[in-house]
Amino acid sequence: MSGGVTIALDAMGGDRAPGMVVSGADIALQRHPEIRFLLFGAEQEVTPLLAKIPRLAGAVTVHHTDEAVADDARPSVALRAGRQTSMRLAIDAVADGRADGVVSAGNTGALMAIAKFVLKTLPGIDRPAIASFFPTRRGESVMLDLGANVECDEENLVQFALMGDVFARTVLGLIEPTVGLLNVGSEDMKGNDAVRGASTRLRSAVSPVHFHGFIEGDDIAAGAVDVVVTDGFTGNVAVKTAEGTAKLFGEFLEAAFHHSVSARIGYLFARRTLRKLRMRLDPRRYNGAIFLGLGGIAVKSHGSTDAFGFANAIGVAVDMKANGVLEKIRVELERLSQAPFAPEPAL
Amino acid sequence: MSGGVTIALDAMGGDRAPGMVVSGADIALQRHPEIRFLLFGAEQEVTPLLAKIPRLAGAVTVHHTDEAVADDARPSVALRAGRQTSMRLAIDAVADGRADGVVSAGNTGALMAIAKFVLKTLPGIDRPAIASFFPTRRGESVMLDLGANVECDEENLVQFALMGDVFARTVLGLIEPTVGLLNVGSEDMKGNDAVRGASTRLRSAVSPVHFHGFIEGDDIAAGAVDVVVTDGFTGNVAVKTAEGTAKLFGEFLEAAFHHSVSARIGYLFARRTLRKLRMRLDPRRYNGAIFLGLGGIAVKSHGSTDAFGFANAIGVAVDMKANGVLEKIRVELERLSQAPFAPEPAL
Repeated sequence: MSGGVTIALDAMGGDRAPGMVVSGADIALQRHPEIRFLLFGAEQEVTPLLAKIPRLAGAVTVHHTDEAVADDARPSVALRAGRQTSMRLAIDAVADGRADGVVSAGNTGALMAIAKFVLKTLPGIDRPAIASFFPTRRGESVMLDLGANVECDEENLVQFALMGDVFARTVLGLIEPTVGLLNVGSEDMKGNDAVRGASTRLRSAVSPVHFHGFIEGDDIAAGAVDVVVTDGFTGNVAVKTAEGTAKLFGEFLEAAFHHSVSARIGYLFARRTLRKLRMRLDPRRYNGAIFLGLGGIAVKSHGSTDAFGFANAIGVAVDMKANGVLEKIRVELERLSQAPFAPEPAL
Repeated sequence: MSGGVTIALDAMGGDRAPGMVVSGADIALQRHPEIRFLLFGAEQEVTPLLAKIPRLAGAVTVHHTDEAVADDARPSVALRAGRQTSMRLAIDAVADGRADGVVSAGNTGALMAIAKFVLKTLPGIDRPAIASFFPTRRGESVMLDLGANVECDEENLVQFALMGDVFARTVLGLIEPTVGLLNVGSEDMKGNDAVRGASTRLRSAVSPVHFHGFIEGDDIAAGAVDVVVTDGFTGNVAVKTAEGTAKLFGEFLEAAFHHSVSARIGYLFARRTLRKLRMRLDPRRYNGAIFLGLGGIAVKSHGSTDAFGFANAIGVAVDMKANGVLEKIRVELERLSQAPFAPEPAL
């Protein structure tokens, strides 16, 4: 599936780095034996970890650096002052063609700022967006932006819709994905200028996406559309609210099964099924947010994830490469730049 | 508890009105025998329903009108052209003192527009907000705004924080409720101008609320704060996303218990406990959003709720009256208008 793909890893990003990064790379290697890794970070920490996993060591080249981006560093500072950080060097490896993609569990804002500066945005894209999969009643959907752009105008939302559409077609393999715009109601008059303006353009006859219209928060989990488009503020809050709700629900359920002897017995009978459900909804399975709209593959892992989650984030980067998502988005954007849809509408 | 409270009901608002409204009033009356209802709507529909419930009929005065606000009516149109609608007449009853509060399951935007026009906002409040309770790990919290104000500035958010604080103290009975501002991260630099500006003011030494700082989406269900403050766009999406996630989780769980014979047996043992959990998380229990900041008590019920949910919305209005929430907010705002916190900060 993934013939000869090379992934650059920021070994120092994430709460449990570098151990989680090394173990995650090992899990990913078992799934995709053809991956090669460039590991950027503190040699004295990374090398002993690799020594314990010979099969992984053979697939890894370590590039030493003592510097790392702090979790609370301002993106602008990390960009200007951090040219020797593990994060920056890993991104540089994508820019100069040594790697096909980069994965980091470090500071999100810094990763976006550096990736945007080093890898540039694709022609026709003003601002990259953070996209991720999530489970729905109908399977899986993709949502963007999840936090790269706190404020978005009409044009940004239209570009997110185009990128999300191409992404769903290539990575999810959908023929004609439906695109919805997150709003506070489904009627035309609802929302702010940005969503109303984007809706008008996406609804036009020359729009290249299959636009479903406005959707509301409860339509996300219901799987009402394949691609959920929103600004980074709303998207970030929505995805974290969903995570928090699912976690609370899981805790309540667990507490319920400890509530009585009868419930404990019930749990014994149902535990295999419940374990399957837990696996299906495991947030680690959905770890790995894609920075869409960049001239290179960059994937952000949750900072608090473990090796299993980090391996999934690596898998996202590998899938992006294997499916040629970047090239397809580039072609699609070029096609659109010659079509009447790209410029601002006359009315 | 609720000595002699009179509630005006919009009998024609909601998907299952007027049947759901009448049955909901009956359930509420059993809980609070001292309520009296003014029921506004189509007599020919309401009277036969009341005839079947003699104990309720004695507590209800029907005010006939043929007009009702359509679900898709623009708020401005409903306000200007709908002076004889069931919704408008019910709100009028609060304004002229015949009723202590109004409950409607009709068009949210119209209800807010008419209530704001008829009941006016409290001195010191520019815009009313929609507030509601929700279940958390620690019990219950209150969140506002849930959709009244799609765009909010710093001043609106500060006012929401003050109103939410007073509300939590009076209705939830908390001594020093913590207030959090919903954002895309917890660091000072995160977010837009409105949340950063509001944070600076709420954090100041003269701020009357116990400000926790920024919170993220997953902090809502975790119960990190007692009062969650946000703009109406984000709040609306967040609360609906949480509802959708909880619903999906419930469906997955139900499907899991039908998955195998063993799981079905497990369900039989655990069903009492699971039923309790379902009751605890039943969205109908949290039905009834309060319009905070108005000069009268107005409660909005979910349009799709049933009699049980509508009875809870009536209960919210009764609690607001019993706890004197309106007077307490009024006193608090007056006190603040003389304190150095109210005007824009010098820096």
